[in-house]
Amino acid sequence: MAPAADKKLTGLVAATFTPITTQGEINLSVIGPYIDYLKEKQGVNSVFVNGTTGESMSLSVEERKILAEEWCQRAKGKMDQVIVHVGCLSLKDAQELARHAAQIEADGIAVIAPSFFKPSTADALKTFLREVASAAPTLPFYYYHIPSVTGVNVKARELIEGIEKMIPSFRGVKFSGNDLMDLGQCISYSPPHWSVLYGMDEQLLGALAMGAHGAVGSTYNYMGCHFNKLISAFEKGDLVQARTIQFKMQELLSFAMKLGFDVGVNKQLMNELSGLDLGPPRLPLMTCATAHALAIKQKYNSIFPEE
Amino acid sequence: MAPAADKKLTGLVAATFTPITTQGEINLSVIGPYIDYLKEKQGVNSVFVNGTTGESMSLSVEERKILAEEWCQRAKGKMDQVIVHVGCLSLKDAQELARHAAQIEADGIAVIAPSFFKPSTADALKTFLREVASAAPTLPFYYYHIPSVTGVNVKARELIEGIEKMIPSFRGVKFSGNDLMDLGQCISYSPPHWSVLYGMDEQLLGALAMGAHGAVGSTYNYMGCHFNKLISAFEKGDLVQARTIQFKMQELLSFAMKLGFDVGVNKQLMNELSGLDLGPPRLPLMTCATAHALAIKQKYNSIFPEE
Amino acid sequence: MAPAADKKLTGLVAATFTPITTQGEINLSVIGPYIDYLKEKQGVNSVFVNGTTGESMSLSVEERKILAEEWCQRAKGKMDQVIVHVGCLSLKDAQELARHAAQIEADGIAVIAPSFFKPSTADALKTFLREVASAAPTLPFYYYHIPSVTGVNVKARELIEGIEKMIPSFRGVKFSGNDLMDLGQCISYSPPHWSVLYGMDEQLLGALAMGAHGAVGSTYNYMGCHFNKLISAFEKGDLVQARTIQFKMQELLSFAMKLGFDVGVNKQLMNELSGLDLGPPRLPLMTCATAHALAIKQKYNSIFPEE
Amino acid sequence: MAPAADKKLTGLVAATFTPITTQGEINLSVIGPYIDYLKEKQGVNSVFVNGTTGESMSLSVEERKILAEEWCQRAKGKMDQVIVHVGCLSLKDAQELARHAAQIEADGIAVIAPSFFKPSTADALKTFLREVASAAPTLPFYYYHIPSVTGVNVKARELIEGIEKMIPSFRGVKFSGNDLMDLGQCISYSPPHWSVLYGMDEQLLGALAMGAHGAVGSTYNYMGCHFNKLISAFEKGDLVQARTIQFKMQELLSFAMKLGFDVGVNKQLMNELSGLDLGPPRLPLMTCATAHALAIKQKYNSIFPEE
Repeated sequence: MAPAADKKLTGLVAATFTPITTQGEINLSVIGPYIDYLKEKQGVNSVFVNGTTGESMSLSVEERKILAEEWCQRAKGKMDQVIVHVGCLSLKDAQELARHAAQIEADGIAVIAPSFFKPSTADALKTFLREVASAAPTLPFYYYHIPSVTGVNVKARELIEGIEKMIPSFRGVKFSGNDLMDLGQCISYSPPHWSVLYGMDEQLLGALAMGAHGAVGSTYNYMGCHFNKLISAFEKGDLVQARTIQFKMQELLSFAMKLGFDVGVNKQLMNELSGLDLGPPRLPLMTCATAHALAIKQKYNSIFPEE
Repeated sequence: MAPAADKKLTGLVAATFTPITTQGEINLSVIGPYIDYLKEKQGVNSVFVNGTTGESMSLSVEERKILAEEWCQRAKGKMDQVIVHVGCLSLKDAQELARHAAQIEADGIAVIAPSFFKPSTADALKTFLREVASAAPTLPFYYYHIPSVTGVNVKARELIEGIEKMIPSFRGVKFSGNDLMDLGQCISYSPPHWSVLYGMDEQLLGALAMGAHGAVGSTYNYMGCHFNKLISAFEKGDLVQARTIQFKMQELLSFAMKLGFDVGVNKQLMNELSGLDLGPPRLPLMTCATAHALAIKQKYNSIFPEE
Repeated sequence: MAPAADKKLTGLVAATFTPITTQGEINLSVIGPYIDYLKEKQGVNSVFVNGTTGESMSLSVEERKILAEEWCQRAKGKMDQVIVHVGCLSLKDAQELARHAAQIEADGIAVIAPSFFKPSTADALKTFLREVASAAPTLPFYYYHIPSVTGVNVKARELIEGIEKMIPSFRGVKFSGNDLMDLGQCISYSPPHWSVLYGMDEQLLGALAMGAHGAVGSTYNYMGCHFNKLISAFEKGDLVQARTIQFKMQELLSFAMKLGFDVGVNKQLMNELSGLDLGPPRLPLMTCATAHALAIKQKYNSIFPEE
Repeated sequence: MAPAADKKLTGLVAATFTPITTQGEINLSVIGPYIDYLKEKQGVNSVFVNGTTGESMSLSVEERKILAEEWCQRAKGKMDQVIVHVGCLSLKDAQELARHAAQIEADGIAVIAPSFFKPSTADALKTFLREVASAAPTLPFYYYHIPSVTGVNVKARELIEGIEKMIPSFRGVKFSGNDLMDLGQCISYSPPHWSVLYGMDEQLLGALAMGAHGAVGSTYNYMGCHFNKLISAFEKGDLVQARTIQFKMQELLSFAMKLGFDVGVNKQLMNELSGLDLGPPRLPLMTCATAHALAIKQKYNSIFPEE
């Protein structure tokens, strides 16, 4: 059975946070409400689970399975697609997670480049990805490109060259970088059943102009409603309105970045804005000081007063 | 006398090459024909002289003066604006060039961040720029932001914060970077009489969506005609057409980059495509092998067959 | 029970390769002969297991346990010390491995800085290390400092400041970097029961001059006999002889680096020189072409003809 | 006339600061007393003029000539050697300074790699250096290797391969980097009439062990007396004493680096410790706050109380 070509992944996809109790254990009970919140408050209908935002690299293989399973079950009938990120430093672990994702009927899997031993050529990276994909050949496969985090500097365009011969289930790229030439070349190379999804929320508008099919990002968890308006304005050709919204995001995010804005701070901001209790991050991320997240929340409220 | 606020710099600006004889001396005789070529064949009406493309850092102060003077004289009545880059590692040299630019009635000056001792704060960089600007207070002043080359990682947005108090003649930024959040923040901060000009030709479309007022780049020397079509399509709201042209540029430029594409190769490509004899680059840039430039020229001809 | 302070770790420690079958599974049967080879042919009496050379990040938690156990059992009565590296991106996994190392009676554990989410302060890194160490409080604990691989730029000296208050079992640093000021400051700060072990074989002599207590490295697997001579010469004050040996290593290693020299190539070279069958590396490392390793072996034979 | 091979450059060489008036002009009157201070108080008998410490890149060509001339005249009969750094981004300027250095009878010239357009191969860099050297063929020529500042990552060993065929006057390397494998390979490759001089004061001891023939650095301006003791101890085989001194330097320098320690701070520290009035640095370096330099001076006094 080949992956369903008709389920092209588009629009906003939330890169989800992982709910944790204050004791540091996985907190599955929040996932149901989290899904309702995304759908109802943010207008977000797909999720990217166990990615960078979800701190997957700080989770055990077993925890990642439990989380993926809960997301798939709770999202059934509510979300369009649940994409499970299964990338690991260890190929064996990634394969195990890929097989598991197929069992729990995820809508697709994604894999980040291994970042300890960094593949130095497109060939080496393709070979690694192929071995993961082959463990779940029926699931749509997405390459998760985020060179500033992985330090793997293979161009995405070079990676996807002829990749369907090696990975028949290949369906696209989550492109988290600011090299819009490379992005553009991925888009122009992509057949219609692939999706090129942009991952830098702070400059989404540039990527839409270049032709990105959708977007995956952490801020869509709590600002999806605004980004949906940005996308609508863009699609109607109202660039002035699209820019106005994009500039507001930039004002917020640059404010946050000056204060310090890692996944831990981002998670605390999500807690503050959503009212959900997703808990603190895991080490090596440090728990964000309350005042720190509150300052960002206040900035948010001043920029989006109607909210 | 304050700089003329009504001469806002927009559209395409060619970052010009410096004509050199085979003996390695400045070749002023080509500048007249060069201007005609830009205007007639490329539809480019402004130039950025003695910048990175012009190898200014490989020229002596005296050579830079002679070149700037010739460009200003020959462009009179033909070009809209001649912006002279006067940035140097030595503040004294930069001030001397700024004073000279005022004497020869350039339309503006631009200054790159000093890159040997790298300013580590916006304050340090602003102080340096102010000292250059004050040597030519009547000329519109542009900050030339190109962090990947200078290694100076001060955000452009931080640099321009309140800068008119320090540099009353400040009129904009040549932004050569792919951080479109920083670009967007420069644009949203700019008063109407400033110009934010984008400098990465290979992803211009993304910057236009973000609201860039114009563009300065080396490929506009020989592909300005195509980029003018891209801008027209964008302004008409025809993103499909704009993307088609942008993707062609990306195909050409990524081909060139894989082969090797520094300012020397770029100059040789200009020689091949324009028919002008701009000569070789100066050391430390190496002269480009003929076959190398010809391969890129062939690629160009296959992508733009009508040309 | 506190860690035995009398077992100071000194001299050469081999950072071991992980034996793999051609089917890609762990090959425990080679470990016994591997230990004999290190002892008899190389004069190496301690091992650092499941580190970078051992591709631990490409192994599952279960595989790492099996390997650590076999090394501890086979080394009993033969090796001075078996240090088990238990660092992981996931704190939970690292704690599990630390507990396991205590059960199998390893002589010590080491932990690398997590490199996906990179601790940006000494405090964050210390907190992470403390949580791992606390899972095996009776085992001597070593911090594994290798900033060029992890991208974590906390100075080792800053990390160890007051660390015994947080980690009573702290016993030293495996310092794999070329910042000899930081190394020197670790050495001058260390109480007598700590060990500062240098990890860049190609410049060991510089670290010995600075006062390093020992060395951990991959080339000691197959060149330990020569490095033992270097250390002897150094200790006798015969710098001319020490340099002669160090320069030979540099000649070999720079030759290898020009050809390409990652852990996979290094492993194949070990196969060639030791006669042991350690198998290929795991993906994402690619199997080394035979000719590639043979060229390095030939260079080795020309530099060390007596061997 | 070939360069005198008998004047091998060894021992400590001070990389001098450039004396500036508070009005920002060159202050030649301090150079005589500066030379006496180096000789009498620090036991330093050679100088490296117009290098990084001397802010040469912030000086005009004319200013560099005036300075070089004064140093050569005042040093006559007092100093062993005056090496004039003549490197510039512009080859023409560098050649002019090289010719001038020959006229004023400097003892040698040095050239840094151009850092705006960065040579990407040893060949390109050699070609540039050859063109400078050929403007002063009778002067001993030194390559100034400082990759962390220039961003030029050509290995020094690769650069010097066969270089005497291209540059007959080649006499050595000022090696300012912490890659001691590359350093070692330069030393083992060097014929007896070359000098490999180390440039990272904070880890000089490691370089001496590797066989460095001498040292060029900025801290020898005010701590030369201590470093002379370090070298003496090293030459007598008293590594314990050599380490004790090196560790003190490291304590001071790491203290300074935590506070902030660029050439401007360094210059102010020199003012405080020497009593000479060398003035402030030039932009883009910022003038150091008095309290900042005093804090470092106090640290110095606490580490070297006898001074």
